[in-house]
Formats: sequence, C-alpha cells, structure tokens
Amino acid sequence: MGYHEYKRCIDACLQCAAVCNHCASSCLQEADVQMMTRCIQLDMECAALCYTAAQLMSLGSSSAKEICSLCAKVCNDCADECEKHEHEHCKECADACRYCAMLCNNM
Amino acid sequence: MGYHEYKRCIDACLQCAAVCNHCASSCLQEADVQMMTRCIQLDMECAALCYTAAQLMSLGSSSAKEICSLCAKVCNDCADECEKHEHEHCKECADACRYCAMLCNNM
Amino acid sequence: MGYHEYKRCIDACLQCAAVCNHCASSCLQEADVQMMTRCIQLDMECAALCYTAAQLMSLGSSSAKEICSLCAKVCNDCADECEKHEHEHCKECADACRYCAMLCNNM
Amino acid sequence: MGYHEYKRCIDACLQCAAVCNHCASSCLQEADVQMMTRCIQLDMECAALCYTAAQLMSLGSSSAKEICSLCAKVCNDCADECEKHEHEHCKECADACRYCAMLCNNM
Repeated sequence: MGYHEYKRCIDACLQCAAVCNHCASSCLQEADVQMMTRCIQLDMECAALCYTAAQLMSLGSSSAKEICSLCAKVCNDCADECEKHEHEHCKECADACRYCAMLCNNM
Repeated sequence: MGYHEYKRCIDACLQCAAVCNHCASSCLQEADVQMMTRCIQLDMECAALCYTAAQLMSLGSSSAKEICSLCAKVCNDCADECEKHEHEHCKECADACRYCAMLCNNM
Repeated sequence: MGYHEYKRCIDACLQCAAVCNHCASSCLQEADVQMMTRCIQLDMECAALCYTAAQLMSLGSSSAKEICSLCAKVCNDCADECEKHEHEHCKECADACRYCAMLCNNM
Repeated sequence: MGYHEYKRCIDACLQCAAVCNHCASSCLQEADVQMMTRCIQLDMECAALCYTAAQLMSLGSSSAKEICSLCAKVCNDCADECEKHEHEHCKECADACRYCAMLCNNM
C-alpha cells in the first residue's frame, strides 16, 4: 500500500491534527478553562499521533498499520472527552476524531 | 486570524507535506535515484516546514505569517527541483508546492 | 554547515521542545490554570518551532538560519511568559528557552 | 510517570531523531546512493517515530508505552540496515538507534 491507497486515511489524520490544534488553542480562551484541561491534553496527544500516522502512511511505511491502530485509540479518547463539552470547537474536534478513528481502524 | 480564516492555507500546507513525503519515498524507488537526491532533500525540508506552518496556523499563532513566508520559499525551491523530473510523483509534488507557496505568500 | 557544526544548537532546540511540552502538560494540572493559558499556548508554539529548527539543522538545510531566527523569537516570548510564574516547570522552561534563543541567535 | 522519570528515554529518542535526519541527508550525498535507499527510507520513518515518542513522553501521555514499543521496533530495523554500511553517519545512526530501542523497550 502507498500514498494513493492511503489517501482518505491520510487526509482524515491531517484534518484531525489541525482540528485538535485548533481545539486546544480555543479551549485556552474559554472562560471555563479549568473544565477543559483534559480536552487540551488529549488534543495535544491526538494531534501528535495523527500527524505521525499521516507521515508514515505518506512515506509508505510498513509501520503504518500499527501507528494507525494507536492513533485510532487516542482519537476515540479525545472524542470521548470533546463530546462532554458544548463548545463549537469541541464538537468539530469530536467529529474529526471519530472519523479519523474509523478510517485508521479500517487500515 | 484563527483556524477558520486560515483554513485554505492550512489545508494546502498539509496536502503539500503529505505529497512531499510521498515524493521522497517514491524517488527512493526510482532507477535513477542518483538524479533525485536534491529532490528527496528538498521534499524532507518542505514537508517539515509545511507541517509546522499548518500547526502554527491551526494554533492561531502570532508567528503564522513568518513561518508561512519561509514555507513559501522552500515550497518554491522544491517545486523548481520537482519540475526538472518526469516522474508522476514529482509533477504532483510540484503542483502541491506551487499552490501551497501561493497561499502562504497571500497570508 | 551540517549536523556536527550545529550540534549544540540542535541539542538546545530538542531540549527546549521537550521542556515546553512538559511545561504545557504540567500547567494543565495546576490549580491556577486560568493564569497559565498564555504559557500553555506559547509552550505549544515554541515546541513546534524548536523541533522544526532541530530537524532542518540536522538535515543540513539552507533554511536553517531563518528557522532559527524565528525560533529564537518565539523562545524569548515563551521565556518572558514563563518567568512570570513560580512553578518549577515554568522556571525550567524559561531557562531552556533563553539558552535555546541564545544559540539560535548565534547561528 | 512524567517528564523527569522519562528523561533518559526522551533524550535518547531526540538524539536518535536528529542522528537519523543527519544520516538521511548524508546518505543522499554519498556516491553509492543507490545502495543507501533503504537506509534513507528507514531514517525518515525512525526520525518521525522517535520525535513523537519523545513528544508523548514529555506530555506525560498514557500512550507513551505503546508509542515507545513501536519506536523500538523501527529503531532496530533502522539499526539493522545502517549496520550494513561503512559510512560514519551510518555507524553513528546504528548506535543511536540501538540505544534508543533499548531504552524504549525498558519503558
């Protein structure tokens, strides 16, 4: 498998990484930031894993499946947390995480 | 400016990073790899800068403009090199780099 | 210039990236997280730039000087913020940022 | 576990990432680059995983153990390949990869 076969999953990972970064930064500007600390923590972890998953897939790495499996797990953890909050950026992030987790698990 | 205003440029940077990684890995499998060494080198540099530009934009960083300016320069260097080669992945990479450079320069 | 000439600056950037990630994560666990939001934001930006600076230097990139210049700026911004706080991780982060900024500016 | 407990492993991962980038870039300048293609490919993959492992450890992530396990595997693959070559950067990279794999496996 290479870049073009992986394309949908790569795109989902890259979108998820960007949306997680946006969610982390937006959480920091919320009045209830004390409630958002676990969300920010998971956003940072999820963004790191999503980009590395995308990178290994786009390099055609034989480790792509394993990083995607770990990425899916953290995406679902992040979505679980984001779904507890009403902020628009959290909803957007939860959706991106669920979609990314689904495609990563299909690898 | 934040994530949504930057969205087109973020997407262009992320696409460019993925296509650069794909081009680097594909160049390594070409029979004329000796001809492709500068392309691989610039692919690696460009992928690193594109992702960081996307990351700083998605974080709403006040350094976004400066990283985009540097990113645009390396994207154009990478495109200049890719355009010398006939491989499909090089053409695809040159296009992604030019588009990304254009959006980064518009920031 | 290449990897071995850049070695001290690469090491300073990598240490700074790690310490910034640690500071961000630690800030999220402080009782006064509301006071730490700018620190967390700058930690995230600084970590991203420090790693990319290290990566471009270790690749022997001709863009190393420019990324180091931007990295130094964000390191100093991050140190300015960290120095406002009494937490041990903030002091450690301020020191790593100042040292990294100094070496990046010497490039 | 957090940053200070992980410190030795974080440092090993960051050193390994930098040395892998340096090895990739140096391989591209060798006369026998055709012989070095698998080395360059694994250098790129290993650098990506090492940095993400360092990042997740420095964030105190609960996924640190799993990323370190995958990182150790790719480090050993990269070392196996580097050990086939006589270039100084390959020897240096093999050593950094073996040491990083050992510490990652101890996590």
